[in-house]
Amino acid sequence: MADQLSLMRELSIKTDSKIVMVVLDGLGGLPHPDTGKTELETAVTPNLDALAQRSICGLSDPVMPGITPGSAPGHLGLFGYDPLDCLIGRGVLEALGIDFDLHDGDVAARGNLCTMDENGVITDRRAGRVSTEKSTELAALLNGMEIDGVKVIVEPVKDHRLVAVFRGDGLSDSVTDSDPQRIGFKPQHVEARIESANRMAGIANKFLEKATGLLSEHHTANGLLLRGFSHKPHFHGFKEIYKLDACAIASYPMYRGLAKVVGMTVVKTGSTLSDEIATLKENYGKFDYFFLHVKATDAAGEDGDFDRKVSALEDFDRMLPRITALEPDVLMITGDHSTPALIKGHSWHPVPAMVFGRYCRPDRVDEFNESACLSGGLGRLPACHLMPVAMANAMKLEKYGA
Amino acid sequence: MADQLSLMRELSIKTDSKIVMVVLDGLGGLPHPDTGKTELETAVTPNLDALAQRSICGLSDPVMPGITPGSAPGHLGLFGYDPLDCLIGRGVLEALGIDFDLHDGDVAARGNLCTMDENGVITDRRAGRVSTEKSTELAALLNGMEIDGVKVIVEPVKDHRLVAVFRGDGLSDSVTDSDPQRIGFKPQHVEARIESANRMAGIANKFLEKATGLLSEHHTANGLLLRGFSHKPHFHGFKEIYKLDACAIASYPMYRGLAKVVGMTVVKTGSTLSDEIATLKENYGKFDYFFLHVKATDAAGEDGDFDRKVSALEDFDRMLPRITALEPDVLMITGDHSTPALIKGHSWHPVPAMVFGRYCRPDRVDEFNESACLSGGLGRLPACHLMPVAMANAMKLEKYGA
Repeated sequence: MADQLSLMRELSIKTDSKIVMVVLDGLGGLPHPDTGKTELETAVTPNLDALAQRSICGLSDPVMPGITPGSAPGHLGLFGYDPLDCLIGRGVLEALGIDFDLHDGDVAARGNLCTMDENGVITDRRAGRVSTEKSTELAALLNGMEIDGVKVIVEPVKDHRLVAVFRGDGLSDSVTDSDPQRIGFKPQHVEARIESANRMAGIANKFLEKATGLLSEHHTANGLLLRGFSHKPHFHGFKEIYKLDACAIASYPMYRGLAKVVGMTVVKTGSTLSDEIATLKENYGKFDYFFLHVKATDAAGEDGDFDRKVSALEDFDRMLPRITALEPDVLMITGDHSTPALIKGHSWHPVPAMVFGRYCRPDRVDEFNESACLSGGLGRLPACHLMPVAMANAMKLEKYGA
Repeated sequence: MADQLSLMRELSIKTDSKIVMVVLDGLGGLPHPDTGKTELETAVTPNLDALAQRSICGLSDPVMPGITPGSAPGHLGLFGYDPLDCLIGRGVLEALGIDFDLHDGDVAARGNLCTMDENGVITDRRAGRVSTEKSTELAALLNGMEIDGVKVIVEPVKDHRLVAVFRGDGLSDSVTDSDPQRIGFKPQHVEARIESANRMAGIANKFLEKATGLLSEHHTANGLLLRGFSHKPHFHGFKEIYKLDACAIASYPMYRGLAKVVGMTVVKTGSTLSDEIATLKENYGKFDYFFLHVKATDAAGEDGDFDRKVSALEDFDRMLPRITALEPDVLMITGDHSTPALIKGHSWHPVPAMVFGRYCRPDRVDEFNESACLSGGLGRLPACHLMPVAMANAMKLEKYGA
């Protein structure tokens, strides 16, 4: 929604008010088959419930009804960037996920170590779930090639996953994947989608050829597949769009990377929730917007561990008073998507959201969970509308039109 | 939303049914700190509540969540024109606000009389809040210049505000403002945004130079700033889009002007609500759509006068039976935006709306206010969706598709 960003840029003003946006990753859930209650409905969360009574609540669709978002679209939506318009390539996302310092013009690709048979046919796309230790060794083996004046940087990510970054002048990212994304096929030639990408395609193919040579002795990881070639996106940042000096507090690199993409300052923080809140407090005077990312809820959901997700929510609830004690002008609490333990992964279900502020016009919602938020004053809204609501409540938007 | 208007044009049919749309300006509010009740929740409104029980209710977003609209976008939305697509320039709006008869091709600009120091730097953008009497005198002084074959008409608006209309052939409105909108700066040269606007920019600058000469002796109003150069917009009107013969009843000129822009017939009316309703009754046989504008609610909100806004709502409630006695096929009651007394101005909060008609499928809402409408059958919807709902309820829309 380019229009929404233009509108925000036109209407936003710098003020002294402060916005805190807490993202409980994978917040939404599904009812436990035995109790009929979701993780949030099961958790004992007196502080969240008390805040809900003073807030305007609702349910947000990260992308649109029925669409399960990855982490990037989930967060971009919350930052007010329509995830259908603002894409981040898979290669870039992998690079962000390891805190890799992507330069302008770099082309990043996600790499999979794989197993190939004697005919070059892929038999295992994950190279027998090769260890991170082994893939770190193989990344070092592949790292640092120079091809036609382009440097290829290879870094391990986790298990069979690598990231390959092509650094040189005039590289286009409009090339196809080598990864056919199924077994029983040979890797594909990388091909240019547009004429000006011929050079990039040629370099990628030469790199893959050399890499296959170097890996040939390393069965099961004797092949490499690349996909999601992409440049670092150029989004207009928070400073330009919202006039906000934005601070990101996240212990996982991918979320720090996503925050950087929209121009937030990423501050150093410890890894626990308590550390993150301490970081929020330390930096509270220096910024006027804070993105605080909580990972534990999503991790438990991904593991299918209903009880652990409930505990993660209760842990957050106990810490909430340390955030409200800062008295932010606007406090928004939501998630980037649902991660129901029952599904063991991201899902399309709309996500509870609440916005607290002096002018929020509280509804009658008295608990913070999926069922209660259904009757909230925010209604059911696209996630990318939440930032304008937060900005409005912080009195940071001027009137539209005369 | 060109699409919605195209759809309306395709599906709308002429019938005998009648629609009355009452706009209680600035209808939505915020809870009083002492009682926790909004203006509408505080007001005793038995007639509105009884009607709500027979209506479908909801909350409408004038532009989109978080956006505070001016009067023009607020009304255009209610008329079914997406306010993000259909813009009215500030100059035109000022001209509409004084019932100025804008011709096609005229370029209107809003003028501010200002105070400048000996170096031409702006020291007060409102010329020390110059009186309307004085600015009327100064407008007459500036009025009627002829520059390169273009006539410049200057009319007073109120206090320091004027409107300047450039009348001549081939004038573009794609020029920048002279008003820097802050003090401590000199007025800016008017510049063309596109090449074909060079002539307009040149004429505006010559006019401003002459005006500054004429005003030089009139401290504090010794300068003039222009902004919002704009042509009268060309929207497809109600007759074309909806096949409606539409009648506007409004005692304030700006709302009459907005109604004219969408092709309504503006009828003469007295200034009180009772006068307006009498005008509605008199004209009831002659039209099939009526826009009735009530200003008192907004005026009280703008003044921060909670109790007076409550009274204005109660006044309307007492008059409502005179409207329902006409037995319109569809009666819609809503506002163009919220004007909470707490904020003393327009706000972004969604606005209560109800649509009564024989086929409206009433919900369970039994009071007309912000909290009750939350659970209404209209849900929370963009204001520009209300016209299609009203049209449908009046059986004025054919089936879409086979």
